[in-house]
Amino acid sequence: MNRPGPAALRVRQAVRAWHAAHGSGPTVAVALSGGADSLALLTGVLAEGLDAVALVIDHGLQDGSAEVAARAATLARELGARRAEVLAVTVDGAGGPEAAARAARYAALDAARGGAPVLLGHTLDDQAETVLLGLGRGSGARSLAGMAPWTDPYGRPLLGVRRADTRAACAELGLAPWDDPHNLDPRYTRVRVRTEVLPLLEDVLGGGVAEALARTAASLRADNEALDGLAPAPSGPELMVDEIAGLPAALRIRTLRAWLGARGARALTGAHLAAVDALVTDWRGQGPTAIPGGSAGRRLQVHRTGGILRAW
Amino acid sequence: MNRPGPAALRVRQAVRAWHAAHGSGPTVAVALSGGADSLALLTGVLAEGLDAVALVIDHGLQDGSAEVAARAATLARELGARRAEVLAVTVDGAGGPEAAARAARYAALDAARGGAPVLLGHTLDDQAETVLLGLGRGSGARSLAGMAPWTDPYGRPLLGVRRADTRAACAELGLAPWDDPHNLDPRYTRVRVRTEVLPLLEDVLGGGVAEALARTAASLRADNEALDGLAPAPSGPELMVDEIAGLPAALRIRTLRAWLGARGARALTGAHLAAVDALVTDWRGQGPTAIPGGSAGRRLQVHRTGGILRAW
Repeated sequence: MNRPGPAALRVRQAVRAWHAAHGSGPTVAVALSGGADSLALLTGVLAEGLDAVALVIDHGLQDGSAEVAARAATLARELGARRAEVLAVTVDGAGGPEAAARAARYAALDAARGGAPVLLGHTLDDQAETVLLGLGRGSGARSLAGMAPWTDPYGRPLLGVRRADTRAACAELGLAPWDDPHNLDPRYTRVRVRTEVLPLLEDVLGGGVAEALARTAASLRADNEALDGLAPAPSGPELMVDEIAGLPAALRIRTLRAWLGARGARALTGAHLAAVDALVTDWRGQGPTAIPGGSAGRRLQVHRTGGILRAW
Repeated sequence: MNRPGPAALRVRQAVRAWHAAHGSGPTVAVALSGGADSLALLTGVLAEGLDAVALVIDHGLQDGSAEVAARAATLARELGARRAEVLAVTVDGAGGPEAAARAARYAALDAARGGAPVLLGHTLDDQAETVLLGLGRGSGARSLAGMAPWTDPYGRPLLGVRRADTRAACAELGLAPWDDPHNLDPRYTRVRVRTEVLPLLEDVLGGGVAEALARTAASLRADNEALDGLAPAPSGPELMVDEIAGLPAALRIRTLRAWLGARGARALTGAHLAAVDALVTDWRGQGPTAIPGGSAGRRLQVHRTGGILRAW
């Protein structure tokens, strides 16, 4: 391996900062695809002197995926990982191919991590794409807060590093990362966001958009966490209208969301929450409001009687 | 004028809801360009029995603008406006042609409104465009909260109405709105957002994007207002680190923003706030942080001495 250049040092510095803020010990697992992002992450982890276990997922979705995985594991051992393991997973879950692959991947990583945190190679560009993907959901800060640097047991040290830097880091170190052909397949929404939407936004808005989206994600994540923490926790199966009617809308909606979640509501949209909120703020004796949830495929009915909300 | 159809009734309903929530009396001024949005707004205001004064801005930027303005004023009187006035403005301010035209327009509307609220024809589509324009700024909820339904003295009753509905409402009523050629001029960033970015996002994300952006704007506006209200107000020229160090980041940043604003800071970015915040949360005896503000063209230096922040 060659001497590190400026991009490799940026990656290493990002790993150091992440570990100072979120690390819990010398051992980490690194989810390695063999692509530039995770490969650069692994080199940064090793350069920082951490004890790295490389976990390579073989999704079995592409011809030759077993060879790609084996090659990544071998490279990880050569670079200095204490152990490198190929995890073959079966992708057959529901919710579309991307969601099914993700679910299978995270289950395998969680089973193999042996108590260590799992570091993921998501970059600033991935974060920007995630924010844009959230624009279509319209659930406010929750849709646009992107990925967290740390959601136990998953850590993302490279959320402030550009994808161009992970590629440059690999080149500086003389490493040839694998190019996943799925990363260019326009059947994936994320690929179209990356190859069509972001470049157009950069052109129209005059540059700096990826960085701005990543800053916005961090800011909205902080806002959302603060508001979730400040919203009164619902105290039981019944919600007293008096206890929430005087709250700012942002807190009232969050208390309603927590209460409905505890009652079994699922996949709540802003429109559902607005309808329930109208029972509090725009009460004209209207009937119950139906929202998705309860036992499988059922709907939950939210009623107001006097000053009390109930859901069943 | 023909009988109203479904689109005209939607416009009228939006005016009614706005007036119930934010109206303060029977008289309103309507900023009228003669385009479909403001023309539909005026018909909704008149259908609701409000006493309408039409204010038509002539920016003097296009050939024939005086005739367009005069025709809009005449139409407003024919439709039933108590008074219609053409306000000729001179656009020569700084900050680009769009910002200069906006500043001249709002100054003229404010001078002519005679104490009445000024209703503006911004639609849900305008709101979606405003959110996308904010993506490039990266200041979180503040950048993406879009336009408010009411910011004294400006009201926007149509933020929940589609542009297609204002056009349809005019057609239903037999009115021929003016088509501003600027609305198709790709030299304006907003026009490119409207004609290129939004259609691509609708295609890639599978539809419903404009509505989702408008919902996100409303949700982030509520979040931002709640957090602004919850953040402790700085009590004087010095800020005690102890008073804010334990706050959630979202509140601490807002208290710092308010304090810096009161000290003369201008055009604060997320990066400026992060640097000042580091004096609180990552104190290693570092020197002062420079931010824009103070007297003309100067910079403000933010110092920490012991447990106290000062700016000069």
